[in-house]
Amino acid sequence: MTTAHEPVIDVLRPIVSQGLGSVETVPVQGARVRLRQVTTGPASIEGALDESLAVPALIALARQSEAEGASAVVVDCMGDPGLDALREAVGIPVLGAGHTAMHMASLIGDSFTVLAVLPRLVSRFRIAARTYGLESSLASVRSVDIPVLALDGEQEELVARRLAETGAAAVREDGAHVLVLGCTGMIGMTRRMERLLAGAGVEGVPVIDPVPLAVGVAQALVRVGLSHSKRSHPDPELKPVVGYPFATTRG
Amino acid sequence: MTTAHEPVIDVLRPIVSQGLGSVETVPVQGARVRLRQVTTGPASIEGALDESLAVPALIALARQSEAEGASAVVVDCMGDPGLDALREAVGIPVLGAGHTAMHMASLIGDSFTVLAVLPRLVSRFRIAARTYGLESSLASVRSVDIPVLALDGEQEELVARRLAETGAAAVREDGAHVLVLGCTGMIGMTRRMERLLAGAGVEGVPVIDPVPLAVGVAQALVRVGLSHSKRSHPDPELKPVVGYPFATTRG
Amino acid sequence: MTTAHEPVIDVLRPIVSQGLGSVETVPVQGARVRLRQVTTGPASIEGALDESLAVPALIALARQSEAEGASAVVVDCMGDPGLDALREAVGIPVLGAGHTAMHMASLIGDSFTVLAVLPRLVSRFRIAARTYGLESSLASVRSVDIPVLALDGEQEELVARRLAETGAAAVREDGAHVLVLGCTGMIGMTRRMERLLAGAGVEGVPVIDPVPLAVGVAQALVRVGLSHSKRSHPDPELKPVVGYPFATTRG
Amino acid sequence: MTTAHEPVIDVLRPIVSQGLGSVETVPVQGARVRLRQVTTGPASIEGALDESLAVPALIALARQSEAEGASAVVVDCMGDPGLDALREAVGIPVLGAGHTAMHMASLIGDSFTVLAVLPRLVSRFRIAARTYGLESSLASVRSVDIPVLALDGEQEELVARRLAETGAAAVREDGAHVLVLGCTGMIGMTRRMERLLAGAGVEGVPVIDPVPLAVGVAQALVRVGLSHSKRSHPDPELKPVVGYPFATTRG
Amino acid sequence: MTTAHEPVIDVLRPIVSQGLGSVETVPVQGARVRLRQVTTGPASIEGALDESLAVPALIALARQSEAEGASAVVVDCMGDPGLDALREAVGIPVLGAGHTAMHMASLIGDSFTVLAVLPRLVSRFRIAARTYGLESSLASVRSVDIPVLALDGEQEELVARRLAETGAAAVREDGAHVLVLGCTGMIGMTRRMERLLAGAGVEGVPVIDPVPLAVGVAQALVRVGLSHSKRSHPDPELKPVVGYPFATTRG
Amino acid sequence: MTTAHEPVIDVLRPIVSQGLGSVETVPVQGARVRLRQVTTGPASIEGALDESLAVPALIALARQSEAEGASAVVVDCMGDPGLDALREAVGIPVLGAGHTAMHMASLIGDSFTVLAVLPRLVSRFRIAARTYGLESSLASVRSVDIPVLALDGEQEELVARRLAETGAAAVREDGAHVLVLGCTGMIGMTRRMERLLAGAGVEGVPVIDPVPLAVGVAQALVRVGLSHSKRSHPDPELKPVVGYPFATTRG
Repeated sequence: MTTAHEPVIDVLRPIVSQGLGSVETVPVQGARVRLRQVTTGPASIEGALDESLAVPALIALARQSEAEGASAVVVDCMGDPGLDALREAVGIPVLGAGHTAMHMASLIGDSFTVLAVLPRLVSRFRIAARTYGLESSLASVRSVDIPVLALDGEQEELVARRLAETGAAAVREDGAHVLVLGCTGMIGMTRRMERLLAGAGVEGVPVIDPVPLAVGVAQALVRVGLSHSKRSHPDPELKPVVGYPFATTRG
Repeated sequence: MTTAHEPVIDVLRPIVSQGLGSVETVPVQGARVRLRQVTTGPASIEGALDESLAVPALIALARQSEAEGASAVVVDCMGDPGLDALREAVGIPVLGAGHTAMHMASLIGDSFTVLAVLPRLVSRFRIAARTYGLESSLASVRSVDIPVLALDGEQEELVARRLAETGAAAVREDGAHVLVLGCTGMIGMTRRMERLLAGAGVEGVPVIDPVPLAVGVAQALVRVGLSHSKRSHPDPELKPVVGYPFATTRG
Repeated sequence: MTTAHEPVIDVLRPIVSQGLGSVETVPVQGARVRLRQVTTGPASIEGALDESLAVPALIALARQSEAEGASAVVVDCMGDPGLDALREAVGIPVLGAGHTAMHMASLIGDSFTVLAVLPRLVSRFRIAARTYGLESSLASVRSVDIPVLALDGEQEELVARRLAETGAAAVREDGAHVLVLGCTGMIGMTRRMERLLAGAGVEGVPVIDPVPLAVGVAQALVRVGLSHSKRSHPDPELKPVVGYPFATTRG
Repeated sequence: MTTAHEPVIDVLRPIVSQGLGSVETVPVQGARVRLRQVTTGPASIEGALDESLAVPALIALARQSEAEGASAVVVDCMGDPGLDALREAVGIPVLGAGHTAMHMASLIGDSFTVLAVLPRLVSRFRIAARTYGLESSLASVRSVDIPVLALDGEQEELVARRLAETGAAAVREDGAHVLVLGCTGMIGMTRRMERLLAGAGVEGVPVIDPVPLAVGVAQALVRVGLSHSKRSHPDPELKPVVGYPFATTRG
Repeated sequence: MTTAHEPVIDVLRPIVSQGLGSVETVPVQGARVRLRQVTTGPASIEGALDESLAVPALIALARQSEAEGASAVVVDCMGDPGLDALREAVGIPVLGAGHTAMHMASLIGDSFTVLAVLPRLVSRFRIAARTYGLESSLASVRSVDIPVLALDGEQEELVARRLAETGAAAVREDGAHVLVLGCTGMIGMTRRMERLLAGAGVEGVPVIDPVPLAVGVAQALVRVGLSHSKRSHPDPELKPVVGYPFATTRG
Repeated sequence: MTTAHEPVIDVLRPIVSQGLGSVETVPVQGARVRLRQVTTGPASIEGALDESLAVPALIALARQSEAEGASAVVVDCMGDPGLDALREAVGIPVLGAGHTAMHMASLIGDSFTVLAVLPRLVSRFRIAARTYGLESSLASVRSVDIPVLALDGEQEELVARRLAETGAAAVREDGAHVLVLGCTGMIGMTRRMERLLAGAGVEGVPVIDPVPLAVGVAQALVRVGLSHSKRSHPDPELKPVVGYPFATTRG
C-alpha cells in the first residue's frame, strides 16, 4: 500500500528494449517507484558512443518525470549517461546508479571494486571514480566478461558464479572491501553472490546492487528536502536548438 | 504511526548533558529513531581529547543498541568519534554524521564547505576529508566561531546569520557548491540559512544538516540489507581488558 | 601552397550557426585544415545539456571526416563534447581543444589557469582537469563573465581587456604560470592579451589559444603515425539503435 | 653515563602487561629513555576498538610524563593510538611510532612497505598513510600474519624469517625500497632481517624499527626546541568531564 | 627540401660518444632538425649522478643552439636531464623527451607504461611522473633490463622482442593503454614492436618513440609562438660563477 | 667535549664564498659537525641553473666526506641540489635541508608553509613538495622577497620582521600550522621570529630552521644504522666520463 504523501522515484532506463511498457510502477517501502525507458537510443550501453546516443532521450524523459510529479529520478545505468545534463535539465534530485553506488561503497568500507561486465568498461569506471573524486577508495575494476545483452538470458547461475569468482579475486588480490555490481541489469544477484563468496571463504564483504540502493538514497534526499547543487548544475540557458524540440522548453 | 517491521535507528550522542533522558523515541517517516546518550565523557566535543574520552562509553552504547534491536546507529557528532571502533564493535550499520554528510555533499555537488563552529576544528575537518578519501571535493572549511555549548542557547537568529554569512563567503571565495553544518546541534537551521542565503544572492546551494540525512541513509542501507564491510572493520579479538568490562563481551 | 601528402586536419564545430558553410578549407603550415560544423544541436555550448545535444551530430561529422580522408579531427570547443564517443567512433586521432590545451599548458609551465567565459563553466573545467589527471597543475579557473554568443560581436577590445585583467589576477593571486583561453571563439586574442598583460607588469606568461595549438599537435601525431589508444577508446559494438541511423554503420 | 642536561624521552606503552614495572629507565646515546605503561586498557592493540580503550590511560600517562620532566614522549604502538589527543593534552613533543616511521621511510627512499602483523591491520595502515599525507610513497602494506601477543614468545627465528620473506616479496612485487616493521614489539629484528634479505638477494633495503628511530627523532626535535604545532593540536578547552578525573586538569 | 622560414629544432644529446659529429642536420617534414651533443659528461645516462654530470655542458649547448638560430631544442634523453636549468638558460622552447612523451601518452590514452631499460630507472620514472603531475595516468614502469650502451649494437631483434613482451605484460597486468619507450636510443623500434604486439594479441596500443614526437610538438609550439613560461623558468640572475665560464653570459 | 665514537656529520655548502675555510668544525650535542664548501659553482643558489652548476662539485665533496670518516652529510641548501646524485655517489646517509625540513614540518603539524626568499623560488618549492610526496601537507609557499646574497648583511632585524609578517599571513590566510625557513642562511632567526609572531598574536606555530634540524635527524639515522635505500639510489655504474675525473672512482 502506498499513501498520498509518499515520494515518487522514477527509474530511467537509457536503453531501447521490448521488455518494458512505457511506465511501470513498483511499490517499495515508503515510496512509489516508476520505471520509464527511452524510445530512441541504443539497445545496450557498452561505451561512450552508446551513452551519447542515449542522453537526448534521457533528458526528455527526466523532464517528463518532473512534470508528472516525480520527487527524484535515478539513471538506471552504471555509466551514469547524461548525469550532468539531466541535473541541469531538472530541479528534482537526479542520481546516477554508478555515482551513487561508488559513494555508498566508500561510505561502508575502506576500498571497493567495481565488477564490470566487459573488459572495455574497466578503464571507464576507473576514470569515473577519478572524476567523482573517489580515486583513493577504488581498489580495482575487474571485468567478468559477460556481454550486457546476455544478462537478460537464463544463465543466471553462471553469471553469479563469474561474479563471485571475480569478486573473490578482487578481495584477495586487490584488497577490495566492498564489491559493486558493474551493471544495473543484475537484480537479485547479491544474495546469491554472498552465498557463493562465503562458500569460497570470503565473508564480511558487502555487495552493492546499485539501483535499489540509489532509490533509497533518493528517498533520503527527498525527505530532508535536498537536491543537487544548482551551482554545480545550473539551469541551462535558453537558446536556439536544431533537432531536439524538447530542449528549448522545460517541464 | 510506526509499524512492526519499520527499522529502528539509534542516534548516539557522545556527550554528557542534562537535557536528554536515557532513551527518547522520535518517529520519522518509515522508521523509529531512538536518541541515546553516553553517561561518561565530556560535556562537549571540541577536539581529539574530548573525542577520546567519549569513545569508550559510545562503544558500550552501540552494543546496547544492537542488543536492543536497533537496525543501525548514527553517531551524533561531526567529528565521528569512535566510528572505526564502533564498526568493529557491532554488526549493524554504524554511520558517522560527519563521514556521511561529506559523502552526501560530494554526491549532490562538485565541491563542499564544512562550516565548523570553532577555528580549532578547521584543520580536523580537512584531515578527516583526506582520511575519508574526499579531499578533492572539499572546497574549504570555515569557522563560524561559536562555542559548541553556546548552541543550546536562544541565540538562534545570531547563529543562523553567522552561518549564512560564512556560507556565502565559502560559495563566493572558495567555490563551495554545497554547505555542510559542522555541528549536529543545529537542528532547524537549514531552512533559515537558505532564506538568508537567498537574501544575500546566493541561491541553489544545498545546506546539509548531517543527522537527519544520516538517518535516511541508514534506512536506505537497512532496506537493502547492507552494513559496513567486516574487511575494513573486523570483529575485535577477544582479549584481557582492564577497566572496561563491556569490552570483553558482545551483545 | 599545399602538397598532396600534406595531412588534412578537420576542425569540427559543435554548434549550429549561420556564419559557416558546410566545409571551409584553411591552409596552415604543413597541413590543410577543413572547418566543418554540425547541422543539429544548440547554437552555443554553455554546459552539459548543450554538449549532450551536440554530440550525436558530432559523431556523424567525425565519421564523415574520416570517410573523406581527414588525417585527424579537432573538436572545436573547450568543453570537449563527445571526445570519448568520437574516439570510439573513428580510428584517426581525435583531439579535444580543452583536453589538448590543458596538457600543453602543463607541458610549458608549472601551473595554469583556464579563463572561462561564464561563471557556470568554472566548476566544469575544474572537474575536467581532474578527469584528465591534470588536477595538480591547475592553478585555478576564473570567469571573465562574457556570454559565448557575444564573442562574435565587435567588442573585441573589451573582451581582450577583461581577459587580460582576469589573467593578471590569476597570475598574481592564484600562482598561474600559463593562461588558457576558455573558449575557442577568441581567435587573435592572444597577441592583444600579451600586450595588455605586459602593460600591467605581467610578463613571461604564455597564453594558449586552444584550436591552433591542437591543430599543430594533431599534425605531430599524424607525422609519427600515432592515434588514440583503442584500449581506452575501443570500436563500438554493433547493435540496434533507434533514431540515429549513422550509428550502426561506420565510414 | 647520563648527564644532567640530557633530555628525558618517555616511551609510552599503550597495553597492560605483566612484563614491565611502572617505569624503567634505559640509557641511550645522548638521552635517558623511560618506559611507562598504562594500567587500564587492553592486553594488545589489534584494531580500532583496542586503540580506543587504550587512549584515556595514555592521556593520563603523557601528562604524568610532562609533569615528571620528560622532554618528549613516544607512543610505543604502530597504530599511533591517541596521537592527536596526546598532542592536545601536553606541550612537549609527542611522536607516534607509526607516524614517525612512515615519514622517516619516505625520507630515506622513494617508497616503503609496512609489514603488518595481522591481515586485519593492512587496511588501517593504508588509511593511516593517507591521513598522514604519505599515500604516494606507500608501496604496499603486507601482513606477516603473526598474532601480536605471540611476539613475546621465543619464536624469534620464525618471526624473522616470515618478516624477511614478506619483505622480499614487497621489494620484488610492490616496488618497496624501504621496509617498516609494523609492530613495535620486534626489537632486534632488523639486523637479523637484513642478513636474511641479503641471503635472498635483496640488498640495499633499509629496515626501520620504529621506536628506536622515533626516540632519535624526538631528541632532534628537543635539541632545536621544536614541538608539535598548537594550531594543529590546540590545548583542550576546560569543561565538565564525567568519569575521567585527570581530564579536567593539566600537569 | 627545406625553406627559409622553416623552424630549426635542435636535438641535444647529453652523452659523450664517438658516433656523432658536432652537428648533423636531418630534414623532417616542415622543419630542419640539427643533432648536437655534449663534449663533457658521461658516456651514458643511467641515473641521477650521470644526469648531473651532463647538465653543465647541456646548458652551454642550449645557449649555443639559441645563438645559432634554433627555434626550439629537445633534450634527447628520457631522464630529462637539466630540463629546468635549460629552460631558465634560454628563451626558445625546451622540451624534454620524457616529459613530452608522458604528456602525449596521457593525451592519447587513459593510462601509460614507461618501458625502462634498467631496473634502477623504474623508480626514477615513477617519481618523474609525480613531479610532472601525471601520476594518476601512470599505469606502471617496467624494466626490459637492457644496458643503455648495448642499444647501439646489432641486437635489434632481441631488443624489440624484449620490449614487446614487457609491453604486452604491462597492457595485460597493469592496464596500460599506451606504451612509452624508456630510452631515446631505440629509433625504429615502434613499428617492429607493433607487429610483435599484434602477433601476441595486443592490438590498438600506441607505442611512443619520444624524440620524433617531441620534435613535432616543438614545431607545434613554434608555429603558434609559444614557449615555456618564464614564471616557472625565470631567467637566471647574473652572479659570480667559478668553473663554468658560459654561465655568466647569455647567447 | 666530543668523544671518539661520536658521529661526524658533514654539512656541505653548495656555494662558492669567501667567508668559510675549506673545513670548519662545530661541536653540537652528541656529534661533531664539519662545514665544507664547494670550490666551483655559483655564488648563490637561486634557481635550477644555479643548482646544476653546484652539483658536480657537491658530488666530489660528498665522496671526500665519506672518505674522511663522515657518518652522514647534510646538503646546506633548501633547493636540495644534487640530492639524488649524492645519494647514488655515497653510502652514508645524505639529507637535503629542504627535503628533511618539509618532512619534519609534516611530522609536527597538519600543514606547513615554506617562506621562500624570492618570488622565483615559490613554484620550485611547490613542485619539490609534490616530488617528495608531501603535496597534501603543503599549505602554501610565500616569498619574503629578499635576495639570497643580502642575507649575509647586517639587516637581520629587517629580515626577521619580513619573515614574521609573511609567516603570520601564511597562518591566517593559508592555514599554515608550521613555518619552514626557505633559506639555510638564516641561522638564529627562529627565536626572533617567534617573539615577533607572538607579538602579532600568532602563537603555537613552530618555525623550522632546516640545517640544525637536519643534523639532528642525521644523528638519529646514524645511531640506528639507517641510510638511504640503495633501491632508490643505486650505486652509479662505472663508465667513461669526460671532464669530471672524480666521477669514475669512489671514495
